[in-house]
Amino acid sequence: MQWDDARARSALRAAFDAAIAAADPRRVLPLHLPTPPRGRCVVVGAGKSAALMAAALEEAWPDLPLAGVVVTRYGHAVPTRRIAVLESSHPVPDAAGEAAARRILAAVQGLGPDDLVLALMSGGASALMPLPAAGLTLADKQAVNRALLACGATIGEMNCVRKHLSAIKGGRLAAAAAPARVLTLAISDVPGDDPAVIGSGPTVPDPSTLAEARAILARYAIPPAPHVAAHLSDPAAETPKPGSLPHAEFRLIATPLLALRAAAEAARGFGLTPLILGDALEGESREVGTVLAGIARAVRAHATPLAPPALLLSGGETTVTIGSFPAGRGGRNSECLLGLARALAGMQGIWALAGDTDGIDGSEDAAGAIVTPDTMARAGAAGLDAAALLDRHDSYTLFATLGDLVVTGPTLTNVNDFRAVLVA
Amino acid sequence: MQWDDARARSALRAAFDAAIAAADPRRVLPLHLPTPPRGRCVVVGAGKSAALMAAALEEAWPDLPLAGVVVTRYGHAVPTRRIAVLESSHPVPDAAGEAAARRILAAVQGLGPDDLVLALMSGGASALMPLPAAGLTLADKQAVNRALLACGATIGEMNCVRKHLSAIKGGRLAAAAAPARVLTLAISDVPGDDPAVIGSGPTVPDPSTLAEARAILARYAIPPAPHVAAHLSDPAAETPKPGSLPHAEFRLIATPLLALRAAAEAARGFGLTPLILGDALEGESREVGTVLAGIARAVRAHATPLAPPALLLSGGETTVTIGSFPAGRGGRNSECLLGLARALAGMQGIWALAGDTDGIDGSEDAAGAIVTPDTMARAGAAGLDAAALLDRHDSYTLFATLGDLVVTGPTLTNVNDFRAVLVA
Repeated sequence: MQWDDARARSALRAAFDAAIAAADPRRVLPLHLPTPPRGRCVVVGAGKSAALMAAALEEAWPDLPLAGVVVTRYGHAVPTRRIAVLESSHPVPDAAGEAAARRILAAVQGLGPDDLVLALMSGGASALMPLPAAGLTLADKQAVNRALLACGATIGEMNCVRKHLSAIKGGRLAAAAAPARVLTLAISDVPGDDPAVIGSGPTVPDPSTLAEARAILARYAIPPAPHVAAHLSDPAAETPKPGSLPHAEFRLIATPLLALRAAAEAARGFGLTPLILGDALEGESREVGTVLAGIARAVRAHATPLAPPALLLSGGETTVTIGSFPAGRGGRNSECLLGLARALAGMQGIWALAGDTDGIDGSEDAAGAIVTPDTMARAGAAGLDAAALLDRHDSYTLFATLGDLVVTGPTLTNVNDFRAVLVA
Repeated sequence: MQWDDARARSALRAAFDAAIAAADPRRVLPLHLPTPPRGRCVVVGAGKSAALMAAALEEAWPDLPLAGVVVTRYGHAVPTRRIAVLESSHPVPDAAGEAAARRILAAVQGLGPDDLVLALMSGGASALMPLPAAGLTLADKQAVNRALLACGATIGEMNCVRKHLSAIKGGRLAAAAAPARVLTLAISDVPGDDPAVIGSGPTVPDPSTLAEARAILARYAIPPAPHVAAHLSDPAAETPKPGSLPHAEFRLIATPLLALRAAAEAARGFGLTPLILGDALEGESREVGTVLAGIARAVRAHATPLAPPALLLSGGETTVTIGSFPAGRGGRNSECLLGLARALAGMQGIWALAGDTDGIDGSEDAAGAIVTPDTMARAGAAGLDAAALLDRHDSYTLFATLGDLVVTGPTLTNVNDFRAVLVA
């Protein structure tokens, strides 16, 4: 099979489209639905995909009486008929998010053992649905969050403290729904796909403790305000512990790994051998591109880690560190690709696509871009200085000029970044 | 098989030792020797491993009359009886290197068709054996080199210009040896293992041309001195082209890939499935460590790209970019490992070793170091701030304090960096 530019681009785009399709709730949510309950069915949810998940549920159960409310990010709503859709702010929470959280918590109260709560969770749920514990304000929570962030606390430490300042996170939403059965259907965009981490786990038992939350603040020498300290010393503020929510069940309906597996299957259809390097790769975007270029070179030169024609797949979220240059236009994925193109320096037989599965790389109108063996040559011919564009984080400009952006529009789902390197 | 700390450390060290052994000329050079010549045997050579290669040859052919001279880096000489060993400066050439190059060029002249020239080449040869073309000085060559470097010229462009300013590179050493047969035995430390690149290819035909050399200087607007310009316009300055050196043959006796394959074989002996990710990985050291951590996580969590217990192997040279902090103690490999340890954040069941196969990571007395699942915990207990140490490029201090340095002493060979991540 001859690998020309057109065929390589088709294969890469097919793999990316397959990954996004594998995370589309309209396709995957129906596969995970239980038999409808004898009693009432209440739907709650939060996240960037919450509205699309609610619409998918309405479509899958067209005749069932459904009640409930979900909250999604501003601009991410889609029309629904039975489930209310609210919008709030991400990543910085706002009052609309707090109001939505109160409606969600209210919606699951007063149910019976024959009733079912379907909780639709996806990335961003934590910020979209903030609900301070009784006696605390959103400002109290944000002050502690900011202090932890400034001290370099780990995400695990921040989650522990957050859950113990919340009225809805760390399993409290599920606890409020008892004795109704609670089934959470979740789309994961976090490394490790830990149910207790996705949206800070409102329906999942919390193994972390009040004592740990106090110890974390002490370790970083963060003195909480007196009423916050009092709350963290009140045994009633403890979260539901593992084993205490037997009525709650959790199912992942879409993950980065499942999306990569779907892309791998699509690649096989093009005669490519797929290899999934990992579903949660991290690192500075351009350097991740350089490493992937090195692996691709080895495939081509030495048939290791596998023989060509091959597709090297990876997921996870890379990082763009803005240095002294003012930032130009570009996201994690286009920056990763430009690092890869520079490291390959025109090597023949290697193409790549990187994109955000939510359809928006950084703050641009493209999901990502495509690199071809002649990307650098075409950039040079167009008068573009690739090194300078990379240094000022302006990779979007390069790929836009070359006509190599990948545009999907917002997908309203998110299983994080997608990278595919095709080695012929 | 239970993977405890002791067993994991043993497996990693055995893999590293196997890689170094696969690059040891005393082991591999005898395997590539031809039948001894009917006529004279003249030995020439240059590189960090030149003296050890000469000694290995003397040992393999104990009774053959051998004449000739090799040049190695200051401090890299070993005792020989028949082949003269000289020393010169690396990476900045000096007059001793120029004198050595003259002796080497003289040694291959006046030979007949029954004579054999063995050329022993290894990393660093280009700088250790500088010989300006007639009418030029070392200062002329260095001025052009510096100008090219400052303009961001590629290594390929620099090699093209260099070869056309040299009296020994770009195939000229082999041309001078005709009609004697020339067999080059080479240890590669360059990505791609291109014979024309190793030591700037003194015994290898040069596909690049005088016209290209002039075009490169013009492209970067580097005006050569008048006598340099005159030299680059003299057809006699053209290098031997492919097809013009039928008496010269080239054999790679050690490469990064062969070393990784030896390590893979050693890993199998420990029950590990090896996977060679690439022999020429590049990128900022700490970020390469972060990416390798991501792949290791996927092995452990999802059995992709392969199932545990596994050993992820990679070679090639990473980069340490010194920023605003004054640099502490540490080399590419220990910095890569600290990046990996931070990204793994104590994840169980993952160990790693990274080291320079020449036995010297950076300018330290260790080849590299080992990371264990409790590296970060032990560092914390010892009062070390891993993030701060990494930011000031002081990773050596951390591993030295923990007693986790890997010390081999100088190996007098070099197939670049070695990285192994063990996932149980």
